[in-house]
Amino acid sequence: MSFSNTLKEKAGKVWEDCYEHPFLQELGKGTLEKEKFKFYLLQDYRYLIEYAKVFAAGSIKCDEEKYMTKFSGVQHNILYDEMDIHRKYMADFGITEKEAEDTVQSLFSKAYTSNMLATAYSGTTADIIAVVFPCAWSYHDYAKRLKQSYGDIPEDNFYKKWIDTYASEEFGESFSWFYEYLDLLCENKTEKELKKIEDIFRTSIEFEFLFWDMAYRMKMSY
Amino acid sequence: MSFSNTLKEKAGKVWEDCYEHPFLQELGKGTLEKEKFKFYLLQDYRYLIEYAKVFAAGSIKCDEEKYMTKFSGVQHNILYDEMDIHRKYMADFGITEKEAEDTVQSLFSKAYTSNMLATAYSGTTADIIAVVFPCAWSYHDYAKRLKQSYGDIPEDNFYKKWIDTYASEEFGESFSWFYEYLDLLCENKTEKELKKIEDIFRTSIEFEFLFWDMAYRMKMSY
Amino acid sequence: MSFSNTLKEKAGKVWEDCYEHPFLQELGKGTLEKEKFKFYLLQDYRYLIEYAKVFAAGSIKCDEEKYMTKFSGVQHNILYDEMDIHRKYMADFGITEKEAEDTVQSLFSKAYTSNMLATAYSGTTADIIAVVFPCAWSYHDYAKRLKQSYGDIPEDNFYKKWIDTYASEEFGESFSWFYEYLDLLCENKTEKELKKIEDIFRTSIEFEFLFWDMAYRMKMSY
Amino acid sequence: MSFSNTLKEKAGKVWEDCYEHPFLQELGKGTLEKEKFKFYLLQDYRYLIEYAKVFAAGSIKCDEEKYMTKFSGVQHNILYDEMDIHRKYMADFGITEKEAEDTVQSLFSKAYTSNMLATAYSGTTADIIAVVFPCAWSYHDYAKRLKQSYGDIPEDNFYKKWIDTYASEEFGESFSWFYEYLDLLCENKTEKELKKIEDIFRTSIEFEFLFWDMAYRMKMSY
Repeated sequence: MSFSNTLKEKAGKVWEDCYEHPFLQELGKGTLEKEKFKFYLLQDYRYLIEYAKVFAAGSIKCDEEKYMTKFSGVQHNILYDEMDIHRKYMADFGITEKEAEDTVQSLFSKAYTSNMLATAYSGTTADIIAVVFPCAWSYHDYAKRLKQSYGDIPEDNFYKKWIDTYASEEFGESFSWFYEYLDLLCENKTEKELKKIEDIFRTSIEFEFLFWDMAYRMKMSY
Repeated sequence: MSFSNTLKEKAGKVWEDCYEHPFLQELGKGTLEKEKFKFYLLQDYRYLIEYAKVFAAGSIKCDEEKYMTKFSGVQHNILYDEMDIHRKYMADFGITEKEAEDTVQSLFSKAYTSNMLATAYSGTTADIIAVVFPCAWSYHDYAKRLKQSYGDIPEDNFYKKWIDTYASEEFGESFSWFYEYLDLLCENKTEKELKKIEDIFRTSIEFEFLFWDMAYRMKMSY
Repeated sequence: MSFSNTLKEKAGKVWEDCYEHPFLQELGKGTLEKEKFKFYLLQDYRYLIEYAKVFAAGSIKCDEEKYMTKFSGVQHNILYDEMDIHRKYMADFGITEKEAEDTVQSLFSKAYTSNMLATAYSGTTADIIAVVFPCAWSYHDYAKRLKQSYGDIPEDNFYKKWIDTYASEEFGESFSWFYEYLDLLCENKTEKELKKIEDIFRTSIEFEFLFWDMAYRMKMSY
Repeated sequence: MSFSNTLKEKAGKVWEDCYEHPFLQELGKGTLEKEKFKFYLLQDYRYLIEYAKVFAAGSIKCDEEKYMTKFSGVQHNILYDEMDIHRKYMADFGITEKEAEDTVQSLFSKAYTSNMLATAYSGTTADIIAVVFPCAWSYHDYAKRLKQSYGDIPEDNFYKKWIDTYASEEFGESFSWFYEYLDLLCENKTEKELKKIEDIFRTSIEFEFLFWDMAYRMKMSY
């Protein structure tokens, strides 16, 4: 198993704590209160804008044209494509684009993205991959597990589109280069340096836990 | 009242919530468990390193030699002087320098400093003053109020040195240029721009609330 | 005339010095030595990678989703589209992609892009528009003037494709939002602040002069 | 010979070209026109402000408290001490502080410092040491060689103070940690990574050549 592939296991408890969080479990069963999902949706919309910036930072720091182009591609996809999934759900909720744009980022979402951005500004491309990785990887992992746990998500689960999108092979492939590139960047790293990458990865998913919890409690601040 | 002077009042509830937090109140009474203070001390030591970096970012962005030099001066004082107060307390606790240096930053401390650093990297010098301001100002305000509430802090209050340091005029003067410089930078700002400065200020103190709470609970993660 | 539209005239002499430079005049006449153009082409290919990074920095600093998306769009176009024009010319010269990717950036190209990047990192979005503006605007202006001066560029001018591309309305429209956005950002600026924007603009085109001159002399270093 | 110690030799020709430049040779003989030195002095004063910012960037990126403190110390010394040498010479020339502060940075000085800053923002602490290193090291090397070439600098050489300052052991010791820290950071680097460090070092001194030449010609722009 390559270094990048071990990161999920090394994160351990927090990876499972996120999956077990009522927000995700109720989403899988289709019982999550719509108000909570709406809150999540608006916060996630704002989150994606900051998340896209981390990839922009990656494309600035990247020496290799191939991966620089990939960073830039993800950034573009977030702003032009992924935010469209949100806009569709938002339309179902009668949320206007203006409402979405006016959404203030909650404190815990800001904690999450600020940690990404601060890591991106002061770190290397390896640090950047490590800090964005948990978001994509855990969404894919959790969505696939929800499908397994609850059988194929029934049509009447309001959250089916969300789960199917993130469980899809297409989504999985969109970040498959993270594994490849991180392993390439870590080839000659010392134990101490690899430990730092693991810490960045785990800290990032700890912030993701706070995000799920913030959404479930619809909590704007402390 | 100049713009900068209004920021404390505008922050409102969160400013008072910090002051009322048991960590500070018990510190004023001298009843705070030493284990909690020790936890705080080590986390604050790590915090100061990141805090110093925000001033370094200020000195990079600053166009005016006068204030660039001030940013650099604060950064230097933190690393060479303020951390000494900590080292003295740490010695009382039998904490070695190595122990201090090896301290891992807790999740909520990281949230606080990451928000500062992300703001500093992408923002202007006005944003930087706004984001560092609450820390210095609230420490000074709280320490002075504790002295008033509990009479002059008695010698047998273990936390007397801490309170006296932050309540001192000398400490107050160390950041008096924040008011002056922020007012200068905000002279021609529009309402919308001033609103952004207020938001940065308030968000930063919200993160400080999380820091006090983290210290009181001795909580490393979520 | 809006503020942004005055910048070309304010740059004055250096704007004309670039246009009069033998590199551009010989390109217009079709007499430019192919070796010189090849040198330019490879250097410009490397330049575009750094130029794209400046837009990435813009998308990080930008508060408004609309313009953030535009910054990101330009960045994407450079990496996925504009570099294709270069690849076509390069194919005509028998230059392989590997050769292009292995090209070392010349000292004066590095001076130009480093000034852009340093401005982008420490500055505001207005500073970023001001620093990238001269490149797009002067290319469009010069290409249009070459077409006027030398009549429609004849088919046997080896550089016809280059001139037609940059003279095209399509290219002009690709950066028309620079005018709009810069004017928006400068609405409430003081004289002193506007002067800074003008200086950034003019300095950037001074570096562009060094770039043309470097290409004409095929000079890698000092 | 440790890796860091080989960098001067690897830079080769450009290191010697700087030393042989008439600016330095005439300074050693005491024949340099005072107008040229005055031009240099004012530009160097402005340069030091930007140079200090590169160390601020180093202190932000640095993970190790020991070296973070060193970066911060150099930054402080530049702003509080080294600029004093300049102020003394400036007083001899009847230059006021206001005149110094109002000095506009020349194009080639901007090229030099922008390359440093752009490297600092996107690079690692090893890159930062590599990019600031040539300035300190070459000043010390050249000043010592001038003393050897021209015998001890006579009292009537107007530039004696300048030469003695940079030739002094004290100055040499002020950056001796660059060698130590760079070697530490490069311990596990691959050949390709070391090559990058060498390129950063050599490019930086190429920009320094442009700086000497700019000063000798008293050239503000291209």
